[in-house]
Amino acid sequence: MTDLGIIAAVSIFTAGLTVSFGAIGPALGEGRAAATALTAIAQQPDAASTISRTLFVSLAMIESTAIYCFVVAMILIFANPFWTAAVEAAQAAGN
Amino acid sequence: MTDLGIIAAVSIFTAGLTVSFGAIGPALGEGRAAATALTAIAQQPDAASTISRTLFVSLAMIESTAIYCFVVAMILIFANPFWTAAVEAAQAAGN
Amino acid sequence: MTDLGIIAAVSIFTAGLTVSFGAIGPALGEGRAAATALTAIAQQPDAASTISRTLFVSLAMIESTAIYCFVVAMILIFANPFWTAAVEAAQAAGN
Amino acid sequence: MTDLGIIAAVSIFTAGLTVSFGAIGPALGEGRAAATALTAIAQQPDAASTISRTLFVSLAMIESTAIYCFVVAMILIFANPFWTAAVEAAQAAGN
Amino acid sequence: MTDLGIIAAVSIFTAGLTVSFGAIGPALGEGRAAATALTAIAQQPDAASTISRTLFVSLAMIESTAIYCFVVAMILIFANPFWTAAVEAAQAAGN
Amino acid sequence: MTDLGIIAAVSIFTAGLTVSFGAIGPALGEGRAAATALTAIAQQPDAASTISRTLFVSLAMIESTAIYCFVVAMILIFANPFWTAAVEAAQAAGN
Amino acid sequence: MTDLGIIAAVSIFTAGLTVSFGAIGPALGEGRAAATALTAIAQQPDAASTISRTLFVSLAMIESTAIYCFVVAMILIFANPFWTAAVEAAQAAGN
Amino acid sequence: MTDLGIIAAVSIFTAGLTVSFGAIGPALGEGRAAATALTAIAQQPDAASTISRTLFVSLAMIESTAIYCFVVAMILIFANPFWTAAVEAAQAAGN
Amino acid sequence: MTDLGIIAAVSIFTAGLTVSFGAIGPALGEGRAAATALTAIAQQPDAASTISRTLFVSLAMIESTAIYCFVVAMILIFANPFWTAAVEAAQAAGN
Amino acid sequence: MTDLGIIAAVSIFTAGLTVSFGAIGPALGEGRAAATALTAIAQQPDAASTISRTLFVSLAMIESTAIYCFVVAMILIFANPFWTAAVEAAQAAGN
Amino acid sequence: MTDLGIIAAVSIFTAGLTVSFGAIGPALGEGRAAATALTAIAQQPDAASTISRTLFVSLAMIESTAIYCFVVAMILIFANPFWTAAVEAAQAAGN
Amino acid sequence: MTDLGIIAAVSIFTAGLTVSFGAIGPALGEGRAAATALTAIAQQPDAASTISRTLFVSLAMIESTAIYCFVVAMILIFANPFWTAAVEAAQAAGN
Amino acid sequence: MTDLGIIAAVSIFTAGLTVSFGAIGPALGEGRAAATALTAIAQQPDAASTISRTLFVSLAMIESTAIYCFVVAMILIFANPFWTAAVEAAQAAGN
Amino acid sequence: MTDLGIIAAVSIFTAGLTVSFGAIGPALGEGRAAATALTAIAQQPDAASTISRTLFVSLAMIESTAIYCFVVAMILIFANPFWTAAVEAAQAAGN
Repeated sequence: MTDLGIIAAVSIFTAGLTVSFGAIGPALGEGRAAATALTAIAQQPDAASTISRTLFVSLAMIESTAIYCFVVAMILIFANPFWTAAVEAAQAAGN
Repeated sequence: MTDLGIIAAVSIFTAGLTVSFGAIGPALGEGRAAATALTAIAQQPDAASTISRTLFVSLAMIESTAIYCFVVAMILIFANPFWTAAVEAAQAAGN
Repeated sequence: MTDLGIIAAVSIFTAGLTVSFGAIGPALGEGRAAATALTAIAQQPDAASTISRTLFVSLAMIESTAIYCFVVAMILIFANPFWTAAVEAAQAAGN
Repeated sequence: MTDLGIIAAVSIFTAGLTVSFGAIGPALGEGRAAATALTAIAQQPDAASTISRTLFVSLAMIESTAIYCFVVAMILIFANPFWTAAVEAAQAAGN
Repeated sequence: MTDLGIIAAVSIFTAGLTVSFGAIGPALGEGRAAATALTAIAQQPDAASTISRTLFVSLAMIESTAIYCFVVAMILIFANPFWTAAVEAAQAAGN
Repeated sequence: MTDLGIIAAVSIFTAGLTVSFGAIGPALGEGRAAATALTAIAQQPDAASTISRTLFVSLAMIESTAIYCFVVAMILIFANPFWTAAVEAAQAAGN
Repeated sequence: MTDLGIIAAVSIFTAGLTVSFGAIGPALGEGRAAATALTAIAQQPDAASTISRTLFVSLAMIESTAIYCFVVAMILIFANPFWTAAVEAAQAAGN
Repeated sequence: MTDLGIIAAVSIFTAGLTVSFGAIGPALGEGRAAATALTAIAQQPDAASTISRTLFVSLAMIESTAIYCFVVAMILIFANPFWTAAVEAAQAAGN
Repeated sequence: MTDLGIIAAVSIFTAGLTVSFGAIGPALGEGRAAATALTAIAQQPDAASTISRTLFVSLAMIESTAIYCFVVAMILIFANPFWTAAVEAAQAAGN
Repeated sequence: MTDLGIIAAVSIFTAGLTVSFGAIGPALGEGRAAATALTAIAQQPDAASTISRTLFVSLAMIESTAIYCFVVAMILIFANPFWTAAVEAAQAAGN
Repeated sequence: MTDLGIIAAVSIFTAGLTVSFGAIGPALGEGRAAATALTAIAQQPDAASTISRTLFVSLAMIESTAIYCFVVAMILIFANPFWTAAVEAAQAAGN
Repeated sequence: MTDLGIIAAVSIFTAGLTVSFGAIGPALGEGRAAATALTAIAQQPDAASTISRTLFVSLAMIESTAIYCFVVAMILIFANPFWTAAVEAAQAAGN
Repeated sequence: MTDLGIIAAVSIFTAGLTVSFGAIGPALGEGRAAATALTAIAQQPDAASTISRTLFVSLAMIESTAIYCFVVAMILIFANPFWTAAVEAAQAAGN
Repeated sequence: MTDLGIIAAVSIFTAGLTVSFGAIGPALGEGRAAATALTAIAQQPDAASTISRTLFVSLAMIESTAIYCFVVAMILIFANPFWTAAVEAAQAAGN
C-alpha cells in the first residue's frame, strides 16, 4: 500500500501548493490593476465607465490564471486519475 | 498504520501552508488597492461613491484567491477524500 | 506510538508556521493602507470621515486573511481531527 | 510497482508546480499592462479604442505563456505518455 | 521517551520561530504607518488629533497579528495539549 | 526497469519546470513592453502605427524565448531520444 | 540522555534565532519611523513636541515585538518547562 | 546500465534548466530595451528609423545569449558526446 | 560525551549566528536614521540640537535590539545553563 | 566506470548551468545599456553616431562575459581534459 | 577525539561566518550615512562641522555592531571556553 | 581512483560556477556605467571625449574582476596543481 | 587523521567564504559613498577638499569591516590555533 | 589518501567560490561609482580632473576587496599550507 500512500501525500501537498502559490501572482496583479483603475477614476471621473469595463475584462483575464490553479487543485483532490489507477491496481492485486 | 500517519501529517502541514502562503498575495494586493482608493478619495472627494464601489468589487475579486486557499485548507482538514479512503482501507484490512 | 508523535510534531510546527507567515502579508498590507489613509487625511482633512470608514472596511478585509490563518492554527492545536482519530486508533489497538 | 508510483507522484507534483509557477509571471505582466492601459485611457480618453485593442492583443500574447503551462499540466495529468508506457509495461510483465 | 523529546524540541523551535518571524511583518508595517503619521503631522499640524487617533487604531490592528503569534508561542510553551497528552501517555505506559 | 523510471520521472519534472520557469521572464518582459507601448500611444496618438509595429516585432522576439522553452518541453515529453534509447535497451535485454 | 541533549541544543539554537531574527523587523521599522520623524522636525520645527511624542509611542509599540522575542528567548534559556520536565524524567528514571 | 541512466537524466534536466533559466535574462533585457524604444519613438517620432535600427541590433545582441542556451540544450539532447561515448561503452562491454 | 559535544557546537554556532544576523537590522536602521538626521541638519541648521537629541534617543532604541543579541550570545558562550547542567551530568555519571 | 559517469554528469550539468546563469547578467546589462542609448538618441538625435559607437563598444565588452561562459561550456562538452584523462585511464586499466 | 574535531570545525566556521555576515549590515549602513553626509556638506557647507560630528558619532554607533561580531569571532578562535573544556576533558580521559 | 574522480568533478563544476557567477556582477556594473555614459554624452556632447576615456578606464577596471574569474576557471581546467598531484600519486601507486 | 582533514577542509572553506562575503557589503557601501562624493563635488566644487576628507575617513571606516574579514581569513589559513592543536595531538598520539 | 582528496576538492571549490562571489560586490560598487562620475563630468566639465582623481582613488579602494579575494584564491590553489601538510603526512606515513 506504499504507492497509494505516496500518491495521496503528493496529491494533498501539491493541491495546497498549487492553490496557494497560484494566488500570489493574480492577487498582486489584480491589486495593481485595481489600484491604477482607482487612480484613473479619480483623475478622469468622466471616463469611469470605460475604465470600469476595461478593468473588469483585465481582472477576469488575470483571475483566469488563479482559476487554472484552483481547477488543477480540485482535479488533484477529487478526480485524480493516478489515484484511481492506483486504487484499482491495489484492489486487483492484493499488493 | 504508517500510510495513515503520513497522510495526516501531510494534510496538516499542507493546510497550514496553503492558508498562510495564500494570505500573502491577497493581503498585499488588497493593501495596495485600498491605499490608492484612499488617495483617490482624498484627491477627488466627489467621486467617492464610484471609487468605493470599484474598490469593493476589486477587493472581492482579490479576496477570492484567499478564499480558494481557505476552502482547500478546510477540505484537506475536514473532508479529505484520501484520508477517508486510507481510514477505510485500514479498517478493512488490519494492515 | 510513532504516528501520534509525528502528527503532534507536525501540528505544532504547522500551527506556528501558519500564524507567523500569515502575519507578514496582512501586517504589511495594513501598514500600507493605514499609511496612505494618514497621508490622505493630512491632505484633505474635510474627507476624514469618508477616509476613515473606507480604511476600516479595508483593514477588516485584509485582517480577514490573518484571521483565516489564526483559525486554522487554533483548529490544528485544539480541534485537530487527525489527532483525534490517531488517539482513538492508539487507544483501540495498543499499537 | 515502484516505477508506477514514482511516475504518478512526479506527474502530480509537476502538474501543480507548472500551473502555479506559470501563473506568477503572466499575472504580474498582465496586471502591469492593464494598469498602464487604465492610466493611458484616463490620460487620453479619445484614444481609448486604440489602447483597448493594443491591450487585448498584448494580454492574449502574455496569457499564451500561462496557457502553455496549463496545457503541459493537463498533458501530464490526462495524456502522460510515460505513464501509459509504464502501465503497459506493468501489465505485460507482472513486475 | 523519544516522542516526548520530539514534541518538546518541535514546540521549542516553533515557539521561537513563530514569535520571531511574526515580528517582522508587524514591525515593518507599524514603522511605515508611524512614518507617514509623522510626515502627515508635520504637513498638517492642525489635524494632529485626527491623525493620532487613526494611527493608534491602525497600530492596534497591525499589532494584533503580532499578538496572535505571541499567543500561539505562549500556548506552545506553557499550555501545549500535545505535550500534555504525550506526558500522560508516557506516565500511563512506561513506554 | 529502474533506469526507465528515473528517465521518465526526470523528463516529466523537467518539462513542467522548463515551461513554468520559462514563462516568468517573457511574461514580465512582454508586460513591460506592452505597458510602455500603451503609455506611448496615449502620449503620441499620431505615432500609433509605428509604435504598434515596433511593439509586435518586440513581442515576437521576446515570445521566442518562451517558445524555445515550450519546444524543449514538448521534445522531452513526446520525442525524448533518451527515453527511446532506454525503452529499446529495456526491450532488447530483459533487464 | 539523548532527549536532554536534543532539547538543550534546540533551546539554545532557537533562543539565538529568535532574538536575532526578531531584531531585523523592529530595527528596520524603528529606523524608518525615526528617519521620518527627523525629516518632519526639520520641516516643521514648531511641531517638534507633537512629533516627538508620537514618535516615542510608535517606537514603544514597534519595540514591543522585539521584546516579545527577547522574552521568549529568555524563557527558553532560563525557564524552559520542557527542559525541567526532561531533567526530572531523567532523574526519576536513570534512563 | 546505471551510468547511462544517470547521464540521460542529467542531460534531460540540464537541457530544460538551461533553456528556461536562459530565457529569464534575455526576456527581461529585451523587454526593457523595447520599452524604452517605444517611449523614445513617442517622444521623438522623427528619429524612429534610427531608433528602430539601434533597437534591432541591440535585440539581436541580447537574443544571442538566449540562443547560446538553446544551442547548448539542443546539443545536450541530440548531439551529446558523453551519451554517445557511454552508449558505445555499454555496447562494447555488456556492462 | 556526545551530548556535551552537541551542546558546545550548537552554542558556538548559535552565538555567532545571533550576533551576526542581529547586526544586520540595527546597522541598516541606524544608517537610515543617521542619514536622514544629516539631511535634516543640512536643511534646517537651526534645529540641529533638537534633531541630534531625537537622533540619539532613536539610535539608542535601535541599538537595543543589537544589544539583546549580543547579550544572548554572551550568555550562550559564558553562562550557558544547558552546558553547566550537561557538564555536571557528565561528571556525576562517567557517561 | 563510475568515475566516467560522474565526470560526464557533472560536465553536462555544469555546461548548462554555466551558459544559462552566464546569460542573466549580460542580458540585463545589455538591456540597460541599450535602453539608455535609445533614450539618449531620442533626446539628442545629433549625437546619434557618437552614442551608437559608444553603445557598440560597451555591448561588446559586456557580451565578452557571456562569451567567456559559452567558451567554458563548449570546452566542458567537447574538449574536457578531465574526461579525456578518465577515458584513457578507463581504457588502460579495465577498471 | 571526535568531539574536539567537531568543536574546532564549528568554531572555525562560525568565526568566519560571524565576521563576514556581520560586515554586510554595518558596511551598507555606514555607506548610506556617509553618502548623505557628503550630500549634506555639498548642500550646506556652513554646517560642515556639525554634520561631521554627527556623522562620526553615527558611524561609531553603527561600527559597534561590526565590532560585536569581530569580538565574538576572536573569542571563538582564541578564548573559546567550550574548546578549553573539551581539551581538558580529552587530556583527563584518554578518550 | 575515487580521489581523481572527485577532484575532476569538483574542478569542472567549480570552473563553470566561477565563470558564470563571476559574469553577473561585472555585466551589471558595466551595463550601468555604459548606460550613464550614454546619458552623459546625450546631455553634454562637448565632453564626449572625456566621458569616453573615463568610461573605458572604468570598464577595464570592472572587467578585471570578470577576468580574475576567467583566469581561475582556466587554471582549474588546464593547470590544476591538485589534479597533477593526484594523477602522479595515482601513477606512482596503483591505487 | 580524520579530524585533521575536517579541520583543514573547514578552515579552507571558511577562509574563502569569509573574504568573499565580507567583500560584498564594503564594496557596495564604498561604491555608494564614492558615488555621492562625486555628485557632491560636481555640485559644489568649492567644498571639494572638505568632501574628499570626509570621504576618505568614511571609506577607511567602511574598509575596516572588510579588513576584519581578511584578517580572520589569514588567521584561519596561517595561524589557526585549532589546526596547531590538532597537528600536535596527531603527532603525540599516532592516532 | 581520502584526506588529500577532500582538501584538494574543498580548496578547488573554495577558490572558485571566493573569486566569483568576491567579484559581485566590487563590480557593482565600481559600476555605481563610475556611473556617477560620468554624470558628474557631464554636469560639471570644469571639475573633471578633481572628479577623475577622486574616482580613481575610490575605484582602487573598492578594487582592493576584489584583490583580497583573488589573493586568497591564489593562496588556496598554489600555496595552501593545509595541502602541504597533508602531502607531507601522506608521504611520511603511507596512509
